[in-house]
Amino acid sequence: MSSESRIRCAALRDRVMSAEAAAELIPAGINVGMSGFTGAGYPKAVPGALAERIRKLNAAGEPPFRISVWTGASTAPELDGVLAEVDGIEMRLPFQSDPICRDRINTGKMDYVDIHLSEVSQYAWSGFLGKMDLAVIEVAGIREDGSLIPSSSVGNNKTWIEQADKIILEVNSKQNAKLEGMHDVYYGTALPPNRKPIMITDPADRIGEPYLACPMDKVIAVVETSAPDRNTPFKAPDETSRKIAEHILNFFHREIELGRLPKELLPIQSGVGNIPNAVLEGLDAGPFKNLTAFTEVIQDGMLKMLKSGTLATASATAFSLSPEGIAEFDNNIDLYRDKIILRQQDISNHPELARRLGVIAMNGLIEADIYGNINSTHVMGTRMMNGIGGSGDFARNGYLSIFVSPSTAKDGAISAIVPMVSHVDHTEHDVKIVVTEQGLADLRGLSPRQRAHEIINNCAHPDFRPALMDYYERALHSGRGMHTPHLLEEALSWHVRYETQGQM
Amino acid sequence: MSSESRIRCAALRDRVMSAEAAAELIPAGINVGMSGFTGAGYPKAVPGALAERIRKLNAAGEPPFRISVWTGASTAPELDGVLAEVDGIEMRLPFQSDPICRDRINTGKMDYVDIHLSEVSQYAWSGFLGKMDLAVIEVAGIREDGSLIPSSSVGNNKTWIEQADKIILEVNSKQNAKLEGMHDVYYGTALPPNRKPIMITDPADRIGEPYLACPMDKVIAVVETSAPDRNTPFKAPDETSRKIAEHILNFFHREIELGRLPKELLPIQSGVGNIPNAVLEGLDAGPFKNLTAFTEVIQDGMLKMLKSGTLATASATAFSLSPEGIAEFDNNIDLYRDKIILRQQDISNHPELARRLGVIAMNGLIEADIYGNINSTHVMGTRMMNGIGGSGDFARNGYLSIFVSPSTAKDGAISAIVPMVSHVDHTEHDVKIVVTEQGLADLRGLSPRQRAHEIINNCAHPDFRPALMDYYERALHSGRGMHTPHLLEEALSWHVRYETQGQM
Repeated sequence: MSSESRIRCAALRDRVMSAEAAAELIPAGINVGMSGFTGAGYPKAVPGALAERIRKLNAAGEPPFRISVWTGASTAPELDGVLAEVDGIEMRLPFQSDPICRDRINTGKMDYVDIHLSEVSQYAWSGFLGKMDLAVIEVAGIREDGSLIPSSSVGNNKTWIEQADKIILEVNSKQNAKLEGMHDVYYGTALPPNRKPIMITDPADRIGEPYLACPMDKVIAVVETSAPDRNTPFKAPDETSRKIAEHILNFFHREIELGRLPKELLPIQSGVGNIPNAVLEGLDAGPFKNLTAFTEVIQDGMLKMLKSGTLATASATAFSLSPEGIAEFDNNIDLYRDKIILRQQDISNHPELARRLGVIAMNGLIEADIYGNINSTHVMGTRMMNGIGGSGDFARNGYLSIFVSPSTAKDGAISAIVPMVSHVDHTEHDVKIVVTEQGLADLRGLSPRQRAHEIINNCAHPDFRPALMDYYERALHSGRGMHTPHLLEEALSWHVRYETQGQM
Repeated sequence: MSSESRIRCAALRDRVMSAEAAAELIPAGINVGMSGFTGAGYPKAVPGALAERIRKLNAAGEPPFRISVWTGASTAPELDGVLAEVDGIEMRLPFQSDPICRDRINTGKMDYVDIHLSEVSQYAWSGFLGKMDLAVIEVAGIREDGSLIPSSSVGNNKTWIEQADKIILEVNSKQNAKLEGMHDVYYGTALPPNRKPIMITDPADRIGEPYLACPMDKVIAVVETSAPDRNTPFKAPDETSRKIAEHILNFFHREIELGRLPKELLPIQSGVGNIPNAVLEGLDAGPFKNLTAFTEVIQDGMLKMLKSGTLATASATAFSLSPEGIAEFDNNIDLYRDKIILRQQDISNHPELARRLGVIAMNGLIEADIYGNINSTHVMGTRMMNGIGGSGDFARNGYLSIFVSPSTAKDGAISAIVPMVSHVDHTEHDVKIVVTEQGLADLRGLSPRQRAHEIINNCAHPDFRPALMDYYERALHSGRGMHTPHLLEEALSWHVRYETQGQM
């Protein structure tokens, strides 16, 4: 497919312009919806051109030029990075993972609203976030009738196109033209009281259309690009990741034996990163066949599982592939295209569907406490790492919630198991399984005191176990309540010690 | 209806015996499912007879006789109270509110597993809690074919009857015979991967049957009782409750004006207690007509709203009426019976339905922190009050989550707004609105720093505002992360101060 043929609609071909010209159409102070989810399908050119414009305005001493940026999830340096660098973002939502963006959030220069990925569109439709003025959306192509071929993520694009007054399209010829037909955009959503059941009972079900509808009169600019997605490499699984994967696999086998999981398991959701990827590789090495995934993101491990037949179908909202992963996908797209469905994120992460399908949610944690509360967003209680992402969507409503982490961080200076977490993203009521390389804690049906034993003995690193048990025992006999024993004056002292002494 | 005619099935009439004889059929060490939800529909006689049996065994120096008790939610002194008093409960789940039970939990003599009310049956079906050996279920009557007329709560009764090996029925002639036909027991649930959409799109929809199916061969005893439900009186709304109700009503009016709520609002869920009851009374005094409720519990305020036409339909799993409320209900049952639907709690609280219907969830809090995290279960971080109940089911998935409390407790010694909550039941990601008699904080779309201003200025008591703002400002400029500013060494100092000095 030639670059030109990506814009098959004549009316929109007339609106082609440079990224710089398009960036001039963005006024200061507005709310801008951008495409992009885990480094896939984000606009590659207009944000950079806008950042350059802001840089010049800043240099000329003009008043600050800032916009609010609403995305699907994390994007890339070409979007979050460049705009954060020129202090061009007033407010950012939802999930982000850019180092410069993170710096601006944690130095108080940017407001960050960390909401569940499934709820972002509901917030926007309901008017909870104010008016969306403009959207910048990457697509793989524009059809004759002006409808859009989504690119490597769907994210919130349907909602942004509906909500924005004006739309700038980036048509990226680097996106595989064969993505056409893989997407499933559902137009049956509504606000209450008009909502209907979402008729998906299997991750393979299609309920929508392969294209994004787009009112042509909203489109104020079309920009042609040819640039790859972020495509971050994965590390090969290390010993820690392999052990975590092994504990989870053993757990699955035991649950199958006990009749608590079918032999095809239940639809898998897997967070992004090296450890979840290692778990997927572990699953692929096991005896499993015809599994399904109902998840946010297709990463390398899932491609391997689809190819080997371990996985029959994967439903997601985006890709997050390494350079090798994208090459594998491009080279074998005919094999993958029937097995992968990309949905908008309010469907891929929908609580109704996570519950009905009985998702097995596997997500990372920053720290867990001895009672099973999980912090997955904050470093030492105050600094934002990335955000809650979709972990809450799946863990809150799925069949099993599994949280994984190495038992220590920073070369053993930090214990991932602490007396009390410094921030809670998943409460004790929502956390069923915690896994480190040390072992697995099965918290189902346990009281807080029972959970403390399970977590300290199975998950904590041996170097920290005695101190954790000492804390627990002293709390238990402190004369305070014995339901969830704590010594409030030292509950967060491990974090303070790390901050002052560099070691928990 | 005479007492005899309540047991219309001849085969089961043959199994009538005394509560004492039935209690003898309960062995030590087993898991027992009991009916009961917010003091309605719990067995009135067998638990007491069992407690008496345990008391005698204890007095005779026999080994401890303990059972695990799984209910719908809170029951009454005749169940939780008597069994806890003789230390007869090994493990209790889910929600409870009995003072003796609470004492045993907080002195470490009883394990308490505090899970979301909608998830209890899923836990049981999935085998996460082990085998249910026996169930004790109160009903309003037994039909000719052995099917059961539920009483004033449905709770987990369907699940307990399905899961238990043996069943003891209590047939309570004090329950209004006209309850027959009000219930909607849905037999379409399944475990994944076999789950289907639950086809409710309006709180008034009926999808099930009015009776509980019960395999006759499981029934080992039938006990006749004639005793009222707990029927706790409500306090008349005080000034604080009235102010909280006023803030919520003003908020609703503004949301309607802004087009963010329809004029019939959206289905209301209301926690149990004096403040939620006051909010309902406030709604009833306003201009609203044809509202609906999709909630757990029908309390007095909802009866008034149904009678006046403010409320068209109420869907719940149980009643929780005062003595006057029960008299009103009994005297006008023909007016109420078509407007009230009682469902099993896995449907009344189902996340799929809370999300689809767009529930407005209104629940109490024990404390909120300046960033919008809510503690609704623990006193000073360690002592269990009642439990999370259904608040998570509704708040996590509903359209709006509103948490209410007076701004102070214990005559001003305790601030309900604190720097950091001592336990988290509802995370910052799930909390949209916080209300005290001081005002309302609308947290939608705000970053943590913005939320702190909103909560401190609008919700905190003026006596505590300067200290809260001082904490926030010092945290902000402490050199730590500025996303969620905290001083970890003093974040919980307010609680410690209360414990040591009796004043926050």
